[in-house]
Amino acid sequence: MPARNYAILGTGAVGGYYGGLLARAGFEVHFLLHNDYAHVAAHGLLVETSTGSFTLPAVHAYRDSRDMPPCDVVVVALKSTQNHLLPVLLPPVMKDAGVVVMLQNGLGVDEAAAAVVGPQRVLGGLCFLCSNKVGPGHIRHLDFGAVKLGAYAPDPRTPPPVSPQAEAVAADLRAAGVPAQAAADLLLVRWEKLIWNIPFNGLSVALDATTRQIMENPDSLALASALMHEVAAAARASGREIPASYIQARLDDTRRMVPYRTSMKIDYDGHRPMEVEAIFGNPVRAAGKAGCPVPLIEGLYRQLRYLDACNTAP
Amino acid sequence: MPARNYAILGTGAVGGYYGGLLARAGFEVHFLLHNDYAHVAAHGLLVETSTGSFTLPAVHAYRDSRDMPPCDVVVVALKSTQNHLLPVLLPPVMKDAGVVVMLQNGLGVDEAAAAVVGPQRVLGGLCFLCSNKVGPGHIRHLDFGAVKLGAYAPDPRTPPPVSPQAEAVAADLRAAGVPAQAAADLLLVRWEKLIWNIPFNGLSVALDATTRQIMENPDSLALASALMHEVAAAARASGREIPASYIQARLDDTRRMVPYRTSMKIDYDGHRPMEVEAIFGNPVRAAGKAGCPVPLIEGLYRQLRYLDACNTAP
Repeated sequence: MPARNYAILGTGAVGGYYGGLLARAGFEVHFLLHNDYAHVAAHGLLVETSTGSFTLPAVHAYRDSRDMPPCDVVVVALKSTQNHLLPVLLPPVMKDAGVVVMLQNGLGVDEAAAAVVGPQRVLGGLCFLCSNKVGPGHIRHLDFGAVKLGAYAPDPRTPPPVSPQAEAVAADLRAAGVPAQAAADLLLVRWEKLIWNIPFNGLSVALDATTRQIMENPDSLALASALMHEVAAAARASGREIPASYIQARLDDTRRMVPYRTSMKIDYDGHRPMEVEAIFGNPVRAAGKAGCPVPLIEGLYRQLRYLDACNTAP
Repeated sequence: MPARNYAILGTGAVGGYYGGLLARAGFEVHFLLHNDYAHVAAHGLLVETSTGSFTLPAVHAYRDSRDMPPCDVVVVALKSTQNHLLPVLLPPVMKDAGVVVMLQNGLGVDEAAAAVVGPQRVLGGLCFLCSNKVGPGHIRHLDFGAVKLGAYAPDPRTPPPVSPQAEAVAADLRAAGVPAQAAADLLLVRWEKLIWNIPFNGLSVALDATTRQIMENPDSLALASALMHEVAAAARASGREIPASYIQARLDDTRRMVPYRTSMKIDYDGHRPMEVEAIFGNPVRAAGKAGCPVPLIEGLYRQLRYLDACNTAP
């Protein structure tokens, strides 16, 4: 079987980084761009990493997914606030046996893809990554980079065994230098990621703070920790156990991390819509359905919705 | 008995307004000032109100309480963040039979005065007032203005009957045109005031919002309302019942109010310490002691402590 080809929908901090690594490793990669199309079509991609940088002077760049070839793997690295575009974007770029990888944080995003291409063709992926887009086609990777992939399970009570499709994509990513692994229980991985995203994305905006500032002040640290424990309680109510040691490990990681402006803060500062519903709204509703009170998360959710509305008002 | 004389410690939005009204009504009033001393000593006070403005060209102004005459009623209208100064400020200005009126929001402020002058000589006062200091000796009254006064009860389980001292001060205020009344249960009035102060002071800072902006967005309104219900639950756990109709009435008031920048927001914008402990920290601790969870208030408290620390860092 020839190497799988890839479509990257959304060539930013996440899509540009992983897509760039796949292209460097020799995979055929097709990049969908919006604002940066002209720059990347002319100059390609520049990926800076802490361990070495590289350029891809000529990449397959597109501004319309209808111009892209059908691909084996379609990586959706758009903001989840753009998922209403999936019915238009996905069909032209998928091979009949192709899969979508929803490389987005939060809950409810796999469902958005499943509604378009069917649940059997959807993988979810979580990136444990600090990366920013610092200019058109210019990605700066700061820290970490692991990816966990799993098949979408329409019935969350019965996660499927590890999916061969997830194994295959993980193997490609590993060949490109990414520490990637397939996980049986995508929903568990999504909740694990929320353990970090809910406190640090939310507080970075509400407090105008970097990860380091949140870690160094005892009040913001106590609040981050309390939020993490609420996320774990909500996960438990959904049948996913996340031990306290996992929370402690994420706090320890974050303390050691370079000071990081989260993706939600970068969107806020740029007056772009924040991923409030995927990262906060859907988890709050999932907790509510499971009968688990999450007042701190819900309070922060309300604040972020208010701030988002003010910040993106015309 | 001759008319009681008054000392006003802190001649700002609150002290300048009520002290100015008392002076206009003919009471002997002595004003302690700090930054504004020279201006007020030279030019007196200007009080603008929605129903008419007045000037007091010559007032008794002081910059040191040791220069003030002993008074019957000492009104403390300082920020509660200044209460560590009470042991220095109060003794020189109190007649032997004088009383202190702690005209401050929050919990734990009467205790600060009682520790200096003894619990029998302390009244607490709550102002339902929209007023700002807009310049040296220049007070702008926007809306409302009622005062409720009650005697401090060291044992909150047994509030005393209405105090004659509170009745006397309320009568003086009424003579000066202030809708003032004596209340038997100071602690109930303090919790009632917190029903407004906790959501609107806190969210005005956390969301950079006026009262009107908070009322007009469905998310901030839902959050304000949820905070109010947590305050009522904490009050109930302390033996003080505040009905849901009281919360609704405060929301209705606030909807009708002119857009108002809260005192906490004004302090924050001026890089001055916010009254976080009196308005948030002490209520959170009281709720904790009474076994009542207040996660939304506690989350906002942690945020405000973080913001206060950043905002007042040297």
